[in-house]
Amino acid sequence: MKKIRVVESVLKANDANADANRARLDEAGVVCLNLMSAPGSGKTTLLQKTIPALAPVACGVLVGDLQTTRDAERLSEATSDVVQINTGRGCHLSAAQVSNGLDELDLAKLDLLFIENVGNMVCPASFDLGEHFRVALLSVPEGADKVAKYPTLYSNANAILLTKTDLVDILGFDTDLVKSDLARINTAAPLIECSPQTGEGLDSWHDWLRGLCS
Amino acid sequence: MKKIRVVESVLKANDANADANRARLDEAGVVCLNLMSAPGSGKTTLLQKTIPALAPVACGVLVGDLQTTRDAERLSEATSDVVQINTGRGCHLSAAQVSNGLDELDLAKLDLLFIENVGNMVCPASFDLGEHFRVALLSVPEGADKVAKYPTLYSNANAILLTKTDLVDILGFDTDLVKSDLARINTAAPLIECSPQTGEGLDSWHDWLRGLCS
Repeated sequence: MKKIRVVESVLKANDANADANRARLDEAGVVCLNLMSAPGSGKTTLLQKTIPALAPVACGVLVGDLQTTRDAERLSEATSDVVQINTGRGCHLSAAQVSNGLDELDLAKLDLLFIENVGNMVCPASFDLGEHFRVALLSVPEGADKVAKYPTLYSNANAILLTKTDLVDILGFDTDLVKSDLARINTAAPLIECSPQTGEGLDSWHDWLRGLCS
Repeated sequence: MKKIRVVESVLKANDANADANRARLDEAGVVCLNLMSAPGSGKTTLLQKTIPALAPVACGVLVGDLQTTRDAERLSEATSDVVQINTGRGCHLSAAQVSNGLDELDLAKLDLLFIENVGNMVCPASFDLGEHFRVALLSVPEGADKVAKYPTLYSNANAILLTKTDLVDILGFDTDLVKSDLARINTAAPLIECSPQTGEGLDSWHDWLRGLCS
């Protein structure tokens, strides 16, 4: 019982910070997306390709990782508005950490803010960061059973990206299983099939993002 | 402050349960391994190939997942001693859950017990389950930067498996980066390069496991 009460109070405090973040983003006219997935599903590569393609839409990124600034370094070639948040042993970003990250950005000059969450299919899905939209990635090498196994992540997403589609044939990936599992838990979100590495399918993703800014 | 104290008390309660699990396994003469990795790195496929190859060593499995019994169903072809533990929203197995799982097994007839943890590179690394050895997997499609980004998982492992090595050339994977990152945080654990799918490299893994039983 005690443990459950603690988790609730942590979530409640987080929600208050998330609401404050959202109000701050609204006031600055910034649309914010929370990108979540397992480690290595291609979040950073996706953003490296996306940010230049969206110009003149001005994009910033908050990058969450346990350690290292490797992702922020990779992204700094696409935009100067990048902040790395190191969580230490923390398995997800919290709204308070995002609030600190927002302090480091000039929101007035941004249109879109991407939050690249810690690579983890579980915990990030339970923590509102103050984003407007949630994007869940699933990469082909992870296997087609992941929607059924991690339903919280995929049921609450506003868009779902199936990434590394260049490996579908090589790995015999069952895209139909993903679609039928999604049909049970989330029929509102588009499924965008793409390969950030080759560029295949990214136009649909960019069009979806442009639709959020208009 | 409050949050930190709570985490410590949760960990302390978990450690007591873990010690009790280990004593119970020791008494039954069962060697227990905790397998940890990101989702889709090949843990279940690895065990499907490993269990028959190790005969006459008798193997059991506790499988952790948020939802579904898919992994337990896959493993039940290799051994009848399989227990699925569904964690709901829980991002890792706890020692208390493993204790309940042990109740469902006839430990007297087992030599090796594999615990397949929830697919997650972060939280499982902080929770002792009562295992004797910790095995961390990294699959090639996840990218070569993961050892540096998730050091807790890899620094405490007794063996590290680089899986899906059949994709090294296709993806241009930098195995040397993995080795140099490991050289900084864990020089004791062997790095076993293998492909559970093709069988390549599994002999070294099986030999390492047999060494634990003798």
